[in-house]
Amino acid sequence: MADLVTVGDTSLRLSPEGNERLETATDVRMRTTGTASNVAVAAGRMGTDALWLSKLPDSALGRRVLAELHEHGIETDVASSEGGRQGLTFYESAPQPRETVEIDDRIESTAGTMTPGELAMDEVQDAASVFAAGSTMALSSTAAETVQAILRAGGSGSDFAAFDLDYRPSMWSAEKARATVTNVFDAVEVLFASEDDVRAVLDRNGQPREMAHTIAAEWDFHMVVITRSEYGALAYHDGVIHDSDAIETEAVDETGQHEAFIGAFLARLLEGADTDDALDAGVAMAALTRTIPGPLTTVGRAEVDALLADGDQTTF
Amino acid sequence: MADLVTVGDTSLRLSPEGNERLETATDVRMRTTGTASNVAVAAGRMGTDALWLSKLPDSALGRRVLAELHEHGIETDVASSEGGRQGLTFYESAPQPRETVEIDDRIESTAGTMTPGELAMDEVQDAASVFAAGSTMALSSTAAETVQAILRAGGSGSDFAAFDLDYRPSMWSAEKARATVTNVFDAVEVLFASEDDVRAVLDRNGQPREMAHTIAAEWDFHMVVITRSEYGALAYHDGVIHDSDAIETEAVDETGQHEAFIGAFLARLLEGADTDDALDAGVAMAALTRTIPGPLTTVGRAEVDALLADGDQTTF
Repeated sequence: MADLVTVGDTSLRLSPEGNERLETATDVRMRTTGTASNVAVAAGRMGTDALWLSKLPDSALGRRVLAELHEHGIETDVASSEGGRQGLTFYESAPQPRETVEIDDRIESTAGTMTPGELAMDEVQDAASVFAAGSTMALSSTAAETVQAILRAGGSGSDFAAFDLDYRPSMWSAEKARATVTNVFDAVEVLFASEDDVRAVLDRNGQPREMAHTIAAEWDFHMVVITRSEYGALAYHDGVIHDSDAIETEAVDETGQHEAFIGAFLARLLEGADTDDALDAGVAMAALTRTIPGPLTTVGRAEVDALLADGDQTTF
Repeated sequence: MADLVTVGDTSLRLSPEGNERLETATDVRMRTTGTASNVAVAAGRMGTDALWLSKLPDSALGRRVLAELHEHGIETDVASSEGGRQGLTFYESAPQPRETVEIDDRIESTAGTMTPGELAMDEVQDAASVFAAGSTMALSSTAAETVQAILRAGGSGSDFAAFDLDYRPSMWSAEKARATVTNVFDAVEVLFASEDDVRAVLDRNGQPREMAHTIAAEWDFHMVVITRSEYGALAYHDGVIHDSDAIETEAVDETGQHEAFIGAFLARLLEGADTDDALDAGVAMAALTRTIPGPLTTVGRAEVDALLADGDQTTF
C-alpha cells in the first residue's frame, strides 16, 4: 500500500541546453516531465512511499520515460500499448524579457487512451492519498473520465484526494478546462493551483487570499493551496489563511518547482504535519528545485530540513 | 521556373549521437529529413535549380525545419498553419547485427493537411520536372490527393514526373500503400524504388532486372530505377536494363543515401545525360553521402565528378 498514488500523463521533454532556441538548436536534451510523476518524485524524495500510474507506448520512447522515473526512485505501475504515441513537450527556456516556449505535442498520445480497467485500481483504493492533474484531463474524454474515476475511488477509504488545476493553454481553452475540471471537484479534498491558473480557469479576480476563500466555499474543499512563484504560497484550511513567503533563489530552471512544492506539501501532510509546516516544506522544496536543471527534482529531505532550519525564512 | 520541384512531408529527426540508444539517451541531435526535401537538396548540390513545396506549422519547430533547408541552399515555398503539429522521426542508428530503430511520429502533422490550393501550383506547372514520394501519401487522404494533383499538373508541360515508392511500414500496411500509390502511376514517367520496397509494396519476386521490366510493362513507365544498397542500382529504359555497381564505402550513416541517389540521378537526366551516366552519378552521390552523418547530403558536384573520374567504378 502506497502513501501516495499519482495518476497522469508524462511527456518526453526535448529542450535545447542553456538559452539556445528551438529554431536553431542542433542538440536537445531529453528529459521526462509530467505533473503526476514530478509530484511522485518530489514526495518520494521527502520520504513518502509514492507510486505513479499511467499508460505508455511499448516503444523505445515509452521505455525511456519509465527508465528515467525508476532512476529517480519512484515505483511505477504502467499499462502499455503497442504502436501508440509517446507524448512530447518541446521546451525553450529564456531569460527575461524573452518568453519561454512550451509546445505540448501530446495529441493522440497513449496516455489519452488509459481507462480505469487498465490501471491498478486496487492500489488507488488502498492508498492513503491520490493525486491527479488537469493537464491529463485535457488529453481526451477517456483520460478525463479516468481521472474522475481515480479521484472518486481514492476518496473512499483514503485520507484525501488531491488535484492540481495545471492549465495548459496550448491543449484546451480556459472555458473547456473549467467545464471539465470542475466535474471532479466534488471528489477532491485538496485543491492545488497556481495563482495564474485560478484566474484563467476559475475566472476569479482579486487577492489570492480572497480567491482561496471563495473557491473553498463554492466547492466545499477541505483545503485550497495557491502557489505564487516569487510571492510564495498560501493555503486556506478550516476558515483560516496560512501563508509562506518565497525563499530567494538563484534560479537555474523554474520548471518543476510547482510540482516539487506539491510533492513536499503532500509528503508533510501525510506525516501529520500542520498546514504551516506543509507550506514551509513546499516552499523550501520549490526553492531548491529551482536551482536544478530539468523538471524532475533531486532535492532530498535533508536539504529541505536544513534550509528550513537555517533561519527566518521570510527574510531570506 | 525551377528545373525540379519536389513536394512532400519533411520531419524533424531526433537521433542520439553515435550508437547510443533512444531508450537511455539524454542528448539527441535534431536534423531535418524528408524524402522530397532530401532529393531537392541532393539535386541542388549537383547544380539543379531545385524548389521544395510543403506545409509546415508556424511554430519554432516548423521554422527550424525551414531554416535547415535554407542552410542547405534550396529554394522553398511553404504553406503554414497555426497550431498544427510538426512531423517527427525518432531514429536510432545501430551497427550490425542490431537493428536500427525508426519511429515515424507524423500522425496529424500539418503536412497531412496540405491541399493543391495552398501550394504554388504555377511553379509545379512551369517546372521541368516534379517529384513526390509514397511516404507523403501515407499521411492522410488529403495529402494523397495533393500528391496525385501535383504529379498530374507536373505531367502536362514538363519533361517528366518522378515518384519514389518510399514505403514506411510504421505508417501504413503494404496493401494500403499499394492501393494508394498505384493510383498515381498513370501520371508518373520515372519510378524510383528500393529493391525492398518493390518486393513489399508491389509484391514482386525474382531478380531486380525482371522486376524492373515487368513493372515498366504493367504501368507503362518511361523509366524504372531500382536502388539496391550494397549492390548498386539499375534502370529499365526503352526495353534495356542499365546497371551500375555500388562504390565501396566506409559507411558512417546510411540514411539519406537513397534520396541522394535520386537527386543526383534526376539532376543528370535534366542536363540531358543518358541513363548510364545518370545511374553512375546517383551511385557516386549515394556512396559519398554514406560518409556523412545525417540524412541531408552536403556532397558537391565536384566530389561526385572526381569520384567518377577516379577509376573503374565497378572494381573500387
